[in-house]
Amino acid sequence: MEVLEVRTRQREELVDITGQVQKVVREAAVQEGVLHLWSMHTTCALTVNENADPSVPVDMAEKMNRLVPEGEAFYSHAEGNSDSHVKTSLFGPGLTLIVHDGSLVLGTWQGIFLAEWDGPRTRQVVARLTP
Amino acid sequence: MEVLEVRTRQREELVDITGQVQKVVREAAVQEGVLHLWSMHTTCALTVNENADPSVPVDMAEKMNRLVPEGEAFYSHAEGNSDSHVKTSLFGPGLTLIVHDGSLVLGTWQGIFLAEWDGPRTRQVVARLTP
Amino acid sequence: MEVLEVRTRQREELVDITGQVQKVVREAAVQEGVLHLWSMHTTCALTVNENADPSVPVDMAEKMNRLVPEGEAFYSHAEGNSDSHVKTSLFGPGLTLIVHDGSLVLGTWQGIFLAEWDGPRTRQVVARLTP
Repeated sequence: MEVLEVRTRQREELVDITGQVQKVVREAAVQEGVLHLWSMHTTCALTVNENADPSVPVDMAEKMNRLVPEGEAFYSHAEGNSDSHVKTSLFGPGLTLIVHDGSLVLGTWQGIFLAEWDGPRTRQVVARLTP
Repeated sequence: MEVLEVRTRQREELVDITGQVQKVVREAAVQEGVLHLWSMHTTCALTVNENADPSVPVDMAEKMNRLVPEGEAFYSHAEGNSDSHVKTSLFGPGLTLIVHDGSLVLGTWQGIFLAEWDGPRTRQVVARLTP
Repeated sequence: MEVLEVRTRQREELVDITGQVQKVVREAAVQEGVLHLWSMHTTCALTVNENADPSVPVDMAEKMNRLVPEGEAFYSHAEGNSDSHVKTSLFGPGLTLIVHDGSLVLGTWQGIFLAEWDGPRTRQVVARLTP
């Protein structure tokens, strides 16, 4: 089990962690298996989406902010980040990726993102590779 | 494989099942592994979010009801619970959790919830621990 | 590891792939294990929901189109399919299913769907069965 640290810079943003995750797989030197990723937080999520055009993750964060805006009047949670909690469950806290021939099975345009919904913060993502 | 029973009390609510799930891990006495949870239903989901302040799950259910309200006129499904089906796919039917040192790997504020979207009912969640 | 091909017919639709996935499990002749499914794309997702009444997946796609419509003015991604990327992360790119007694563990009403958000296309879904 390994812990990846991810530094985020804005309240809401998608941060590409594909390189950090691939490093875990490379160093484990496992040929066939499954990689479990888990965010240790309740206001950030993990997702896979396009990391070729940087406008895609920007558009995605913007749309999520429009669907689930910060500070709606009906929320009762005193910390004021109920929107962050909702966004986190919508994207989900974990991912299970397949490892084949020593590499992550990802499509041409797929990258792995930490979706920050209440930053900036330093986040921890646990990785467990099961052969 | 074990089946957990979860009793829900409202049409929409998040029910904390962390204790029930931890009991499965404790009784299995597995030190390192992965726990798969699966809801057997199409109108409730599983998620992980904050279980410290009880206003968080209440705010989350309320926001989901505002995003995906019951009974919108365009729905064609005769049972009248199409919103419940949408909410279920938005949160997702399953979770994969990491087990380390005999315990679930969860962040300080993370709890496991059954998200009921068409209750009240008695729900079944399957748990499979793979060493 | 196997690759399933799924042909979609519309820009947005849920296509039932339960039979294709069950065939993988049957042919593997594994009694107990876990099946990982992974979409190789950034504009379609995988989900589980009701496949008894065909109006349910139709209602679900329609609601997703109302929540995340095509072509909103604020999007910057030049391809014009930012909505498809958002919908994909909302439903998620992968599923982990439990296999018990040689069959997928699914509830009475549960079917497996590829959620197409930018079709029509031919999609690839990777399946890995771990005993």
